[in-house]
Amino acid sequence: MEINKVLSAVNEDLEKFSFGEEPVELYEPARYILSIGGKRLRPLMVILGTYLFDEDWEKAIRPSVAVEVFHNFTLMHDDIMDEAPLRRGKETVHTKWDNNTAILSGDAMLIKAYAALDDLDPKEYKRTIQLFNKTALEVCEGQQFDMNFEIRNDVSEAEYIEMIRLKTAVLLGFSLELGSIIGQSSENNTKLIREFGEEIGIGFQLKDDILDVFGDASHVGKQVGGDIISNKKTFLLIKALEKANKEQKAKLEYWISRDSFDAQEKVDAVTAIYNEIGIKDISEKVMETYFDSAFEKLAYIEADENKKATLKAFSIDIMNRIK
Amino acid sequence: MEINKVLSAVNEDLEKFSFGEEPVELYEPARYILSIGGKRLRPLMVILGTYLFDEDWEKAIRPSVAVEVFHNFTLMHDDIMDEAPLRRGKETVHTKWDNNTAILSGDAMLIKAYAALDDLDPKEYKRTIQLFNKTALEVCEGQQFDMNFEIRNDVSEAEYIEMIRLKTAVLLGFSLELGSIIGQSSENNTKLIREFGEEIGIGFQLKDDILDVFGDASHVGKQVGGDIISNKKTFLLIKALEKANKEQKAKLEYWISRDSFDAQEKVDAVTAIYNEIGIKDISEKVMETYFDSAFEKLAYIEADENKKATLKAFSIDIMNRIK
Repeated sequence: MEINKVLSAVNEDLEKFSFGEEPVELYEPARYILSIGGKRLRPLMVILGTYLFDEDWEKAIRPSVAVEVFHNFTLMHDDIMDEAPLRRGKETVHTKWDNNTAILSGDAMLIKAYAALDDLDPKEYKRTIQLFNKTALEVCEGQQFDMNFEIRNDVSEAEYIEMIRLKTAVLLGFSLELGSIIGQSSENNTKLIREFGEEIGIGFQLKDDILDVFGDASHVGKQVGGDIISNKKTFLLIKALEKANKEQKAKLEYWISRDSFDAQEKVDAVTAIYNEIGIKDISEKVMETYFDSAFEKLAYIEADENKKATLKAFSIDIMNRIK
Repeated sequence: MEINKVLSAVNEDLEKFSFGEEPVELYEPARYILSIGGKRLRPLMVILGTYLFDEDWEKAIRPSVAVEVFHNFTLMHDDIMDEAPLRRGKETVHTKWDNNTAILSGDAMLIKAYAALDDLDPKEYKRTIQLFNKTALEVCEGQQFDMNFEIRNDVSEAEYIEMIRLKTAVLLGFSLELGSIIGQSSENNTKLIREFGEEIGIGFQLKDDILDVFGDASHVGKQVGGDIISNKKTFLLIKALEKANKEQKAKLEYWISRDSFDAQEKVDAVTAIYNEIGIKDISEKVMETYFDSAFEKLAYIEADENKKATLKAFSIDIMNRIK
């Protein structure tokens, strides 16, 4: 299976997927946010999940679009809440239009995500919608915890991992679960593949945290150090506060508490402390733990070994990505 | 059937309906908006729709809660978009908390509305979710048209009626349709009851427009003339602009165009023109047309005549309500 061929199929179907025409203000922002790119990681996971158990992966294309539409709904609303001006190097919807447009168009995308699950086998439909309801609600919970953490200075590593599990990982877990349901897999395989997806998802978010500080601006498509500037409680910051000596901790707290500062100076200063503590290595090791645990789950799944190898290789690409 | 008994059952189930506990910021606003009242018109319509065809109306209680939760999601998001400080005489969610809370809590309510349809018979589940998807999307379309109309001065009566059909009426139509599906009614009866609901819904919104100007402040629970102050394109304003003579039209346009004004003076002046033109009578006649057409549809529905009379009496109460 060629990932690029699957990616093309997903993008083609996303273009075909009808959002409706009138009123154009409601649907144009949905087409826009889906057109500005993205890795299509979730739809690929849906399709890889089906392919593990069934050669005919094409039947998973439209359901995979449901997950991508849902994901982009969350981005559209999150960008309002985070007051983010850019997404993938382009204007966010609430910047290009306005907050009201982004609220309502996002609402419509959430409903269209449900509608994109219409093609599911009626036998699997109810169960799948119920799993989707649960997952979607958890994603909202994760976003709320993320916002709550912004005004707290005592977020623990465990709380942080649970937050990213909800905000990011459960949707990757659901993607693979949905794929395996479409592929008519066994209950046990479906359970294992969901767990695999959640662990990959936690690793994926840790990689995001690392890239925000240690990535290359030209690849990342957003400002390097954005999380540092906004005092975002990332894994790196939480771990640095835990590992810092007295002097390093004081310096970190000084930069966190300053209301006005030169952005580059703050990024450089905090990054220097991260380097002293060795935060990149520490974070990468934790990330690898989640990937390793995921691969152990994968080993227990009853499926063709070559297909499992494809999914594993794809996951390793995520772990090693530079943007 | 006693409406008050049904209302109590709905309110009890709304209290029992679990939104989840953590994070409290996500779920507390949902409980709040549902606790500050409302006529529970939509759940009552679901249950009356079931009762028409099936004595056992209690099985419709939880699905009826889905529609009320969905309706309150739309209110929570609409209030942000309209910058409304009050709802039912109480602080709106984005005022009591903030915009971000109202966005995310509203998203969670939309998802919980789907989850509240879990109890549906698996045979009817897929069809019902598909109807709900279609209805929910139409409600978003109606809200977008409503916002578009705020910056247009050439909205026609037909465009206005289509907007309120989408924004308000289709959900009342769906409520009765859902009820009749739960009551295992025939396709034809389900189609007729949906049309009945939509027409009642249009009449209901026209009544709202009338009450905003001609209602009694102590009953309405919001400022009388609020629509006049904000230049809202209501049926009354659209019809007044159509029926006005040259002088009246100039006066209306004068008040619409003023940026600063005394609110009470504007309300009094516009209401005086409405009275000259006889807008209250004209609007009530149009409203009655929709109710009459709805009652014709009801006459064709194959169901117990006493039960149909209950539904008709309930609808007439809506038409004659003073708040």
